Amino acid sequence: MTKKINAVQFGLGPIGQLCAKTILQKHSGRINLVGAVDIDPSKVGKDIGELVGVGSTGIIVENNIKSIVKKHKVNLVFHTTTSFMEDVKEQIIDLIKLKLNVVSSTEELFFPWFRNRQIAEEIDLLAKKFKVRVLGTGVNPGFVMDVLPSVLTQVCTEVKKIRVERVVNASKRRLPLQLKIGAGLKVGDFKAKKATGKFGHIGLVESLQFLAYILNIQLDEIKEELNPIVTKRNLKTEYLTIQKGRVAGIHHTAIGFKNGQDVITLDLKMYVGDHKDYDAVYIDGEPPIKMKVLNGIFGDVATVGSLINSAYLIFNAKPGLITMADIGLPHGFLRQRQ
Amino acid sequence: MTKKINAVQFGLGPIGQLCAKTILQKHSGRINLVGAVDIDPSKVGKDIGELVGVGSTGIIVENNIKSIVKKHKVNLVFHTTTSFMEDVKEQIIDLIKLKLNVVSSTEELFFPWFRNRQIAEEIDLLAKKFKVRVLGTGVNPGFVMDVLPSVLTQVCTEVKKIRVERVVNASKRRLPLQLKIGAGLKVGDFKAKKATGKFGHIGLVESLQFLAYILNIQLDEIKEELNPIVTKRNLKTEYLTIQKGRVAGIHHTAIGFKNGQDVITLDLKMYVGDHKDYDAVYIDGEPPIKMKVLNGIFGDVATVGSLINSAYLIFNAKPGLITMADIGLPHGFLRQRQ
Ligand SMILES: NC(=O)c1ccc[n+]([C@@H]2O[C@H](COP(=O)([O-])OP(=O)(O)OC[C@H]3O[C@@H](n4cnc5c(N)ncnc54)[C@H](OP(=O)(O)O)[C@@H]3O)[C@@H](O)[C@H]2O)c1
Ligand SMILES: NC(=O)c1ccc[n+]([C@@H]2O[C@H](COP(=O)([O-])OP(=O)(O)OC[C@H]3O[C@@H](n4cnc5c(N)ncnc54)[C@H](OP(=O)(O)O)[C@@H]3O)[C@@H](O)[C@H]2O)c1
Repeated sequence: MTKKINAVQFGLGPIGQLCAKTILQKHSGRINLVGAVDIDPSKVGKDIGELVGVGSTGIIVENNIKSIVKKHKVNLVFHTTTSFMEDVKEQIIDLIKLKLNVVSSTEELFFPWFRNRQIAEEIDLLAKKFKVRVLGTGVNPGFVMDVLPSVLTQVCTEVKKIRVERVVNASKRRLPLQLKIGAGLKVGDFKAKKATGKFGHIGLVESLQFLAYILNIQLDEIKEELNPIVTKRNLKTEYLTIQKGRVAGIHHTAIGFKNGQDVITLDLKMYVGDHKDYDAVYIDGEPPIKMKVLNGIFGDVATVGSLINSAYLIFNAKPGLITMADIGLPHGFLRQRQ
Repeated sequence: MTKKINAVQFGLGPIGQLCAKTILQKHSGRINLVGAVDIDPSKVGKDIGELVGVGSTGIIVENNIKSIVKKHKVNLVFHTTTSFMEDVKEQIIDLIKLKLNVVSSTEELFFPWFRNRQIAEEIDLLAKKFKVRVLGTGVNPGFVMDVLPSVLTQVCTEVKKIRVERVVNASKRRLPLQLKIGAGLKVGDFKAKKATGKFGHIGLVESLQFLAYILNIQLDEIKEELNPIVTKRNLKTEYLTIQKGRVAGIHHTAIGFKNGQDVITLDLKMYVGDHKDYDAVYIDGEPPIKMKVLNGIFGDVATVGSLINSAYLIFNAKPGLITMADIGLPHGFLRQRQ
């Protein structure tokens, strides 16, 4: 089916650790994990298997990939460090120069041709030169608000508008996520954070641009809005107590316009509360389609699923900076428990 | 994006007519319909535009495609005649020899490598020789019970089981469909019809085999069952009156087993009654996924959507007998109304 993958896990935050653990536990037959990298001194030198809780593997976390590449044949890197193109640019360039294919959870890399066109072109050229593929993917961006709605339009003879909703209840999620969505902040502090431009969900505009690209429409304008969801009653999570009137999370939207009409709307709510998670796609078209994923698609695992399953498919694509539209029909694998 | 398509509509039943109409009304900018073919003498000689109710086009229905190919540059055929490989084999071979790419609604063509392996291999070889692609697609098989569930597994680090349900309320559908599902039959007559082997939904096993192929599992066994859904009260449609105790429609299942365990279940109900249409995919995996299409995906339009959108994508694939896994990320187009 695919060629044997010899992989390095690059970046060992929660996503990178879950990715390494999943490979070791569930994909070891097809993906050979040969190394792990992080800059965090508290992780370097540890056995990756022990770090992720699956027992000793003999693979020691290093702070630089070069030493791993010297010892092992590596053809792919699971890259899970940071969200912004500016920040990952040099990391990715280094990986390309080592002739490594890259599957990354960097949100802005999912469709970087607009907001980061120059870096995208540079990476694309270099990847072509070194004959490797660089792909940004994950659950969002990477699937729920872009790839899945694209696929649903396959049966439409006409699409007039498309609306995607993702609602995530952050109450039971880890603290960093709760902090990332501003839970517990005063509204004024939320606004100050927002003004930094690095707050809110990263990748929503990239999802929108991917959809516009796939659906073959030149948008005239994109409006992005980020607002706090303010709680009307006191809330409590394992980590936080959020008083009435404080921020429970974010409401983030990106809307694409054509000829003055909203044609693509992405609407994301991530907040602490009692609400149910769900994902929904509404296509105003022929036929009309109303799709709902009940209880939503759980983010962390799905991100890792998307990274791993994309790794199997990435070799279908020609070298370069590629997108989820270049690797064929996305899919996972059915594994029979013993 | 894609190359200009010069197409012939081959087969002018309800699906072929809707396809021609949709091309003329909604896709004329990108698909140039240059001819239409049917063997029905009552259609031959008519203007295709008039036949489908969009006014004169100057394109006259012919009973043979050869005369069209002589007059026009044609590179693709929308083929919508019959359901079985045995029956379409010669038609498709003729089209291939004319160097025409084929997008067909023939259910058994969707994944013919098991039930019709020999014909499939013959078509594949010939298509490669003449450098054209032959694809079977539609809504079911073609999307709801195979392509869409495949795509949903993309975010799963593990899939243990998958179950797909499609429920169609046939009450408001056309008479041929109501008859096709046995509505109004006595249970005994249903059994006799079933014994012919050409009754029930065609393509369910092909959907199952596509899923098994995509999810990379070698099934040990497939169990297919076709049972009547018997009505407990009198039913009435525009065309039929169905007495209590008679057949309201079909319940058709196909289950794939591995090591004695059901791993893929396709469950299709098409019957007359009060129930709501829906499509659902349940993935027992990590993460678990419960997807529902509320009100279902309406079959006729969606079949045509799938045929037309696949035509745009088919040139991405190498020549041969291809499947929906070979044309890239399935998708439609966003068209802005004036
Ligand atoms: N597309 C999606 O759907 C999706 C979903 C989930 C997450 N993500 C993104 O994926 C990334 C990873 O997620 P996470 O939650 O694991 O993030 P995280 O908690 O920030 O972890 C990132 C890890 O990478 C390390 N790192 C940073 N720069 C590095 C470098 N140059 N070389 C080696 N290691 C480096 C960090 O070390 P230090 O702690 O020492 O800095 C940290 O251990 C984030 O940007 C996140 O936003 C995307
Ligand atoms: N994959 C899917 O999701 C999907 C969905 C819907 C339909 N389908 C299938 O697609 C096919 C078309 O659907 P339909 O409802 O339009 O079927 P239909 O009512 O049987 O119409 C087929 C048409 O093709 C004509 N025809 C038959 N053999 C021909 C030949 N050799 N050359 C030219 N024309 C020929 C028929 O003419 P006569 O009437 O003179 O025989 C008829 O006009 C059926 O097999 C149906 O089961 C598949």
